[in-house]
Amino acid sequence: MAAMDFYRYLTLVLLLHMCSGLSLDTVREFLTREEDTIVFSLIERAKYPLNTPAYDPAAAAAAAGHLHNASFAEMFVRESEAVQAKAGRYQSLQEIPFSPFRVPFTLAPPFNFTRELYPAAAFVNVNDDIWSMYFNQLLPLLAKNGDDGNYAATVSSDLVCLQALSRRINYGRYVAEVKFIGDQQNYTTLIRNKDKDALMKLLTSEAQEDVVKRRVQKKAMVFGQNVTLDGPVETGNSNSSQANFEADPSLVYKLYDQWVIPLTKQVEVEYLLHRLD
Amino acid sequence: MAAMDFYRYLTLVLLLHMCSGLSLDTVREFLTREEDTIVFSLIERAKYPLNTPAYDPAAAAAAAGHLHNASFAEMFVRESEAVQAKAGRYQSLQEIPFSPFRVPFTLAPPFNFTRELYPAAAFVNVNDDIWSMYFNQLLPLLAKNGDDGNYAATVSSDLVCLQALSRRINYGRYVAEVKFIGDQQNYTTLIRNKDKDALMKLLTSEAQEDVVKRRVQKKAMVFGQNVTLDGPVETGNSNSSQANFEADPSLVYKLYDQWVIPLTKQVEVEYLLHRLD
Repeated sequence: MAAMDFYRYLTLVLLLHMCSGLSLDTVREFLTREEDTIVFSLIERAKYPLNTPAYDPAAAAAAAGHLHNASFAEMFVRESEAVQAKAGRYQSLQEIPFSPFRVPFTLAPPFNFTRELYPAAAFVNVNDDIWSMYFNQLLPLLAKNGDDGNYAATVSSDLVCLQALSRRINYGRYVAEVKFIGDQQNYTTLIRNKDKDALMKLLTSEAQEDVVKRRVQKKAMVFGQNVTLDGPVETGNSNSSQANFEADPSLVYKLYDQWVIPLTKQVEVEYLLHRLD
Repeated sequence: MAAMDFYRYLTLVLLLHMCSGLSLDTVREFLTREEDTIVFSLIERAKYPLNTPAYDPAAAAAAAGHLHNASFAEMFVRESEAVQAKAGRYQSLQEIPFSPFRVPFTLAPPFNFTRELYPAAAFVNVNDDIWSMYFNQLLPLLAKNGDDGNYAATVSSDLVCLQALSRRINYGRYVAEVKFIGDQQNYTTLIRNKDKDALMKLLTSEAQEDVVKRRVQKKAMVFGQNVTLDGPVETGNSNSSQANFEADPSLVYKLYDQWVIPLTKQVEVEYLLHRLD
């Protein structure tokens, strides 16, 4: 009995150590700060019109003079991520590339990252879903119709949006780790039973989700307004017309409601299902 | 005399055509919108600590295992700009790379850009000054001390700052073009006399500069605040403590006062000196 208590204690200490620096507070702080990054990136993308040729494989084929399956945007992301990989971006587990490659990093000065995730579950991510949601659903609602030819600058800002969304949504792994550590007994039972529905229920807080959705909508109003020296400042508390903002606040609400929060929870459940592997 | 009037008229028509779409209003609108981009990019860079090893050639040499003259940041910018060049970013004269290369673009769908600048003066830019100002003066004041190892993400956000500053400052060429078209007689005399001081005086509006500086400071307060659902919203009109903002508003004021505006005017003068070549 004494031995069992000792091992129980030792396990707890080891787990807490592995999870050093992670707490519900630091996780929430990270997610709140990422909201700003996401809203900024959407506003910056909305500066450019839709620029359809950048997303059309046929246009890329015409430019290259031969058949292509990939759009200009896909090729741009792949080449940019190759540079980022070489520069060690994906040494941090917080960053996950959309392109299916890994190159050994050669350029970056070395750094010993804290490993806060459970190794067997760290691979979990929903980048494929994020990619398809972004290009097929979000982008047509975000960008105005038109073509100004700034394809490279445009897809460059797409990549910033994708990276911000990916970092935020796949951070669900960190959220799940903290929740697991805080309530190991309950989670362990559900994980052993592979009970996805019960896991989803246990990690859901509708009140918290509601706060997040209303806050990002407000951020879209505050950050996306036209600031003048003498005019009044939009505080995000009124029912201002949506037309005055760089990125439609109700679209940012919808982004979180329909995609960011559900996908994050999908990541959390997937991570937990591998948490005892 | 009639013939001379005809050619005078023709010249005016041709110049106005060349300058299609450019007016003092569209130029001001562009510059005002770029302020948001610059403030967002500074806030995003300030999210990361200084991360000194990314800027130290010795650290890059240690990582590569052999001697290097370039820092990690320099190598990263060079490789990223190579991808951007291949993607046709610099087909638009609004974008100027920091690295001294040009590759024929191969990836981008073709687009016929309007040429709004006078060809013999379009090359003018101060990217070398922007580079040195950014890394040596601005960055140490912008980023907090510390090292979190996210070197690739950090220098990636440096590149976004550099691109925004370069686009804004080198847009001085467009500003000068519009001013020249609007007052050809006076500018032509000063350009023929190579009278830099008089040119600088003619294109300077201190009242307008003052508005810009105070507006970007306000933007740093509005965009860099911590937005909460219930708390009050920072309107940028009060004398709030600087410590509460993601990027110090007084630093953003200083950036425009000491570097952005003077460098833009330097670009304007240089452009004008080549405007009759």
